[in-house]
Amino acid sequence: MIVGSRREVLSGMGAGLAIAGLGGGLAAGLRVPPAIAGTRKIGYAVVGLGYYATRQIMPNFAGCEHARLVALVSGTPAKLEQYSAQYGIPPSHRYSYADFDRIRDNPDIDVVYVVLPNSLHAEYTVRAARAGKHVMCEKPMATSVAECQAMIAACRKAGTKLMIGYRSRFEPYNRLAIELARGGHVGPTRLVAAEHGFPIQPNQWRLDRAMSGGGSMMDIGIYSLNAARYLTGEEPVEVSAVESTDRSDPRFRQVEDRVSFVLRFPSGIQATCISSYSSAHNGYRVTGTQGWIALEPATSYSGQVMTINKGGTTASRVLPPPARNQFAAQLDHLAECILTGTTPIVGGEEGLQDMRIIEAIYRAMAERRHVVLTELG
Amino acid sequence: MIVGSRREVLSGMGAGLAIAGLGGGLAAGLRVPPAIAGTRKIGYAVVGLGYYATRQIMPNFAGCEHARLVALVSGTPAKLEQYSAQYGIPPSHRYSYADFDRIRDNPDIDVVYVVLPNSLHAEYTVRAARAGKHVMCEKPMATSVAECQAMIAACRKAGTKLMIGYRSRFEPYNRLAIELARGGHVGPTRLVAAEHGFPIQPNQWRLDRAMSGGGSMMDIGIYSLNAARYLTGEEPVEVSAVESTDRSDPRFRQVEDRVSFVLRFPSGIQATCISSYSSAHNGYRVTGTQGWIALEPATSYSGQVMTINKGGTTASRVLPPPARNQFAAQLDHLAECILTGTTPIVGGEEGLQDMRIIEAIYRAMAERRHVVLTELG
Repeated sequence: MIVGSRREVLSGMGAGLAIAGLGGGLAAGLRVPPAIAGTRKIGYAVVGLGYYATRQIMPNFAGCEHARLVALVSGTPAKLEQYSAQYGIPPSHRYSYADFDRIRDNPDIDVVYVVLPNSLHAEYTVRAARAGKHVMCEKPMATSVAECQAMIAACRKAGTKLMIGYRSRFEPYNRLAIELARGGHVGPTRLVAAEHGFPIQPNQWRLDRAMSGGGSMMDIGIYSLNAARYLTGEEPVEVSAVESTDRSDPRFRQVEDRVSFVLRFPSGIQATCISSYSSAHNGYRVTGTQGWIALEPATSYSGQVMTINKGGTTASRVLPPPARNQFAAQLDHLAECILTGTTPIVGGEEGLQDMRIIEAIYRAMAERRHVVLTELG
Repeated sequence: MIVGSRREVLSGMGAGLAIAGLGGGLAAGLRVPPAIAGTRKIGYAVVGLGYYATRQIMPNFAGCEHARLVALVSGTPAKLEQYSAQYGIPPSHRYSYADFDRIRDNPDIDVVYVVLPNSLHAEYTVRAARAGKHVMCEKPMATSVAECQAMIAACRKAGTKLMIGYRSRFEPYNRLAIELARGGHVGPTRLVAAEHGFPIQPNQWRLDRAMSGGGSMMDIGIYSLNAARYLTGEEPVEVSAVESTDRSDPRFRQVEDRVSFVLRFPSGIQATCISSYSSAHNGYRVTGTQGWIALEPATSYSGQVMTINKGGTTASRVLPPPARNQFAAQLDHLAECILTGTTPIVGGEEGLQDMRIIEAIYRAMAERRHVVLTELG
């Protein structure tokens, strides 16, 4: 369950509560065959040198077993210079957006990691695939279902892998929450509540619809949505959504602020979810017939806190530090999939499904009615 | 703010965080003029000797300053005998449902407290009013808006007071949460999340639609709804609601199980609320631009726990024990209103408003669309 060895998983588990349903399919998907130990590291080109790329992704290659940073792509020469010096990237492995397609000729680059504004995800994924490269793309996968489908088609045609940056799937507490919730640790799940949001600062691309494709729902609400799906292991059949946006606030001239949305799943589970650009939220709770499992913060870069209520007792659950943090584990996962010829646990279809549901949420809040997911393409 | 003296309020406040907005209108509504100190106690007849009446209400007259138990009404002679003996109620002050209307001739009875199944609230409230008695009625006020309106009209015609048993309005932590949330202690409120539910046992009147008028929404979801209203001090303008009910579960042949509903308020605040008959929930959180205020449990009989997040710090907030618990304070409040000629803070209009919104929620979940509150009568 925790990214890493089976032994690590089990020792993590042994430290606390007895766990129902341990050892299911989740862990299996991340096991690395011994065959790839000692093989070459997979080379990544990072495209876009903003905060997330430079502060969260690039420093974490140091913790990877199978991935390394080999190239950088940026439209700002000074950034290219600065980070290339920092990470030892030679001039031959530095690219502007104009000469991005030359990556085709660089055999050191196996993967292109797209960390650009949402509206550019599709273009750079397709260009990377056409250059014969595998793709890691940040979430949201794109700004529409149509773009997601084009990205999947391009990678399929090129025979390259496509993975979406759902890092929480590589974070130990989230993985444990999934295992516990789906395993019925507090009885069958009845309700999920998930809240994600932050007070957004003005004057940034996220508030420009042409760049972002949407507001809080695209950017931070997607964490509530994705959590509801991974915690239940089900796909919603119906969505309802209510929007509150103060259009007189300069931040919200183009994109939505708050969205409260409800997902109904086939088993009857409901997820009530919050997405906000005007208040801070980061947590979820899964309530079963016998108690609940909560993470808060849940999808932060670090510092997850898990609380479990069962049999009338509420207790914290502490895991040992993982061998690789969620960023390194995510980078390694695609590398391992490439080395072993397997499929990422969060591929293009995962990003596409979130985008389908986000489009349904936007439709539901605009038309003020429930949207049945089978209505969608 | 806390039921009781101004001094108690302030000493409670002084024990913890500095509080913005202290001393607003909430406290004023519950201050008891010195004039009534030492006057006679108001006599209550309790109608319906079920669990809630006998375990929660009747024992708490002992803690009242202005209310006393003087009569009992039940259809079960053995119960009437047992509890009359326990509380020293003479035979002249014991009534069956058949001879209930004779209360008119008993000057010791000032108030009739209706603690019957929901479908009987209207009938007994109207009969009590016609007998010239004031009425305390449990929530939900009735099973329809029409019944609520008839109850209000009957009490108005009789010139008697009508109060609904919203006990959380007399519970110190809830009162503090109201004051803090409305006072902007964590900035202007942006979102409220409220969860209430319990796994219901089979074979009881709550599962019989003719007796209850509805399922979890009427019985326990009303706590989430009422909290969203009292925490914001606003009235919702739009509701959305999603139902999940397993009709093959014998408990849910007639009434709904889970409802997730979203309320949108005029200021843009959204409340995402849960109501469940298949899982345990009791809590709410108010999130403002600068943090949040949480109570969990929130509306329990006792044991409230308050947590406040502000300025990056999360801390518990402990109040001193109140002079009167929420049950005694609620009983005293109507007594004090009678003695001073004032209006209860939770009168018939409060119960009617919840019922209007519950009807909108039922319509929204049946028609799978948002319901605008002005659509309602």
